[in-house]
Order: sequence, then C-alpha cells, then structure tokens
Amino acid sequence: MPASTPTDPHGFRRRGVLFVLSSPSGAGKSTIAKKLLAAEPELSMSVSYTTRAPRPGEVDGKDYHFVSLDRFREMANNHEFLEWAHVFDNRYGTPKADVFHTLSEGKDILFDIDWQGAQQLHQLAGGDVVRVFILPPSMAILRDRLEKRATDSQGVIDARMARAANEVSHWDGYDYVLVNDDLEHCFECVRMILAAERLKRSRQTGIIGFIRSLLKAGGSAE
Amino acid sequence: MPASTPTDPHGFRRRGVLFVLSSPSGAGKSTIAKKLLAAEPELSMSVSYTTRAPRPGEVDGKDYHFVSLDRFREMANNHEFLEWAHVFDNRYGTPKADVFHTLSEGKDILFDIDWQGAQQLHQLAGGDVVRVFILPPSMAILRDRLEKRATDSQGVIDARMARAANEVSHWDGYDYVLVNDDLEHCFECVRMILAAERLKRSRQTGIIGFIRSLLKAGGSAE
Repeated sequence: MPASTPTDPHGFRRRGVLFVLSSPSGAGKSTIAKKLLAAEPELSMSVSYTTRAPRPGEVDGKDYHFVSLDRFREMANNHEFLEWAHVFDNRYGTPKADVFHTLSEGKDILFDIDWQGAQQLHQLAGGDVVRVFILPPSMAILRDRLEKRATDSQGVIDARMARAANEVSHWDGYDYVLVNDDLEHCFECVRMILAAERLKRSRQTGIIGFIRSLLKAGGSAE
Repeated sequence: MPASTPTDPHGFRRRGVLFVLSSPSGAGKSTIAKKLLAAEPELSMSVSYTTRAPRPGEVDGKDYHFVSLDRFREMANNHEFLEWAHVFDNRYGTPKADVFHTLSEGKDILFDIDWQGAQQLHQLAGGDVVRVFILPPSMAILRDRLEKRATDSQGVIDARMARAANEVSHWDGYDYVLVNDDLEHCFECVRMILAAERLKRSRQTGIIGFIRSLLKAGGSAE
C-alpha cells in the first residue's frame, strides 16, 4: 500500500486525527511510529512538557518543553494537559491547547503512550482519538526481543515482561487491534487505518462548503 | 492499493462488516459496488425479498426471494426485515436473520441503498454498520452522466436530479464521505475503508483466545 495509499485529491479542509499507538515494550511500536512519521508528512509527535533535565543535544521547545516541578504542577492543576504521566522521578505532560490547535489545522498527531494515557486522552478528546493496539506474536518472542537488546539485566527484563502482560490485558480499550508478526505488514495496516480515519465524515470539516455548492446547483440544469 | 491491501494473516475469527454504499444516482456507486464485489471474496450482497415478479433469467433464492404481498407484509409485521423499501409498486426487504448469520460467520455484506435504508439499518444493526456516502464531483457532471445513459426522458432525468439533491442533503448520516471524481481512486478509498473496518477491535471476535494465550504465558519465561 505505501506507494498507493489514497489521499484526498480535493484538499478539503479536515480535522486532524489524534492517533494513539500503544503496545507492550518490544512489540515494535517505536519502529512503526518512526516509519509512520517518515511516511506521513501531515503527522507529527506533540512536544511534551517534562520536569526532567535536558539531555545533551536536546532542544527546549523542540524535543520537550523543559519546566520546573512547580510549573508542571501548576499546569496540571489548571487542566492544561490532555494526559500526563509520572515515569520514575519525572513527569511528562501533553499540552491540550497545542494539540487541539494542531488538529484544527488539519494535521495529525501521533501519541506513543500506554493504556492509561490512551484512556486519559479518550476522556478529554473523545471523537478526535483513534487508538491502535499492537500485540506481539507471542510472549516468548517479546522476551526474546527484550533479551536481544542486551541493554537490560534479567531483573529489568522480568519487570518489563510483567508490565507487558499488564498492557496486553488492556487491549479492549482500543479501537483497532493488530498483531505484529510481520513488521512491514503491520506498518501497512497502521498506515491504512490512519488513511481511512482521515476520510471519516466527522473529520471532513471542509466538505460542508462543497456540499452546499452541490445543493445550490440542486436539481437544476445550472 | 488493490494488490497490497493488507489482510489478516492470522485468520482470527472476526465479525463481518455490514457495509453500506449510498450515493445519488449517477455518482458511480453501482460501478464501485461491482468492482468491490469482484475484488473482495469475503464480501457479498444479501439476497432481498421482493414482491415484484421475477424477470427472465432471475432465480428465486439467488437474485431475490420472490414472495407475495401478503407474505411480505407478514414478514414486515414480524420484524423480519432489517430495512425495507417501497419502490414504485414493489416492496424490497432485507432479511434480518440471514444478514446476522452471515456477519457471525465473518463474511461482509454490501448494501447498495439510499439514506433512509441506511438509517433503518443503523437503528437495527448499530455497531455492525459502516456507512459510506459517495458524492458526485458536481451536479452538472451528475446530470451529464444521467443524460449520457440516454435511457431516460428529460422529465425522468429532472426527477432523478431532484432526488439526487435530496440524497446529498443527507450526507451527514454517514460514517465516511468520498467524492468520486476519479473512479479508480474512489474505489481504492472504499476498499481501504472496508479493510480498516475489518481491523476494528469490536469485530476481532477471535483475537480473544489469542490474547488469553498471551496472558497465560504472561511475564514468565514459559
């Protein structure tokens, strides 16, 4: 499909898709997200707020918005986040205003988050959200992939496997479910889902003008 | 996309899609329906009940179930139809039991119906239904296509154009909206929508067993 994914030739204005990809660690989500961002110029990641310190080379406002814990708490209290998470000692939050502005401009935003983030997003952004869950072909393959990374100790791998099982148990909070036993095929399915979702009537905000012009021409020979 | 539409390589059992195509007469719906039926072996039309007399070559139980007006009324009173319509002096009805049986077997059913039929279907079959509306690129092109058929008088064409405008005004009762200004592109979009809808979690009835096996393997090294 890559070469022939249908796109809208009319260029009607549309509302963007808030596109959530979730999967247990090791099921291939990050690879698919990277391929998707490279293939879809209208899709980007949102820039999160975080309380963690910038790493060498990270640019404020591009990689993250780096803020103090006090500022982060203030934003959270003001409901300025669509979703936020506490990971180890750091906090990460998705800015509501930025996301809705991007969607209204007809650009899609990719979220690489877990089931809890997906649930939060869905509560706040309902119809904008499309949630895709990617399953590993088996838990043995998942463990194998984690072990091949060779960056983690056995204890960390065991913890990741337990976390993976927990993720899998929340598969029913998603709109689409895929099994990644062929990366290219799984990527094509994800891309197809995004393309189809863009055609949803509820997102075709710009087609209303076209419909009005059809109805104006009406049954007459014009 | 035709050659590379992703299909499910796992063969999980799934619930079929009740796939509705509507458009004003002349917008290309019948051509697209025919191409779709040829390309998608898991998609078929449901066999309707009708009170009209069989035409030469039509086979009872294959082209239609031919029934008397009394029998049709009885079925309608017993709520045996998912939707039915009165067209000129004849009645046409879609049998509920047959359709739900087909969907439960993982086969998709195509409906080539108007907005009222789509509305009836949606009321009775809710989540099974996917409604796609195909718009003509302009009313002038629609009239041109109807005139080129050269089978209808000017009066009939005028009536069809008025009916077309009425159809278009109900575009907001659909899940997806497409403009058919390039038949091949429009067909690809329709096919992509069907393929994506098949991947909906709510239709992946057979994936539950697979998920159970993943969770059984759980975090253990199995």
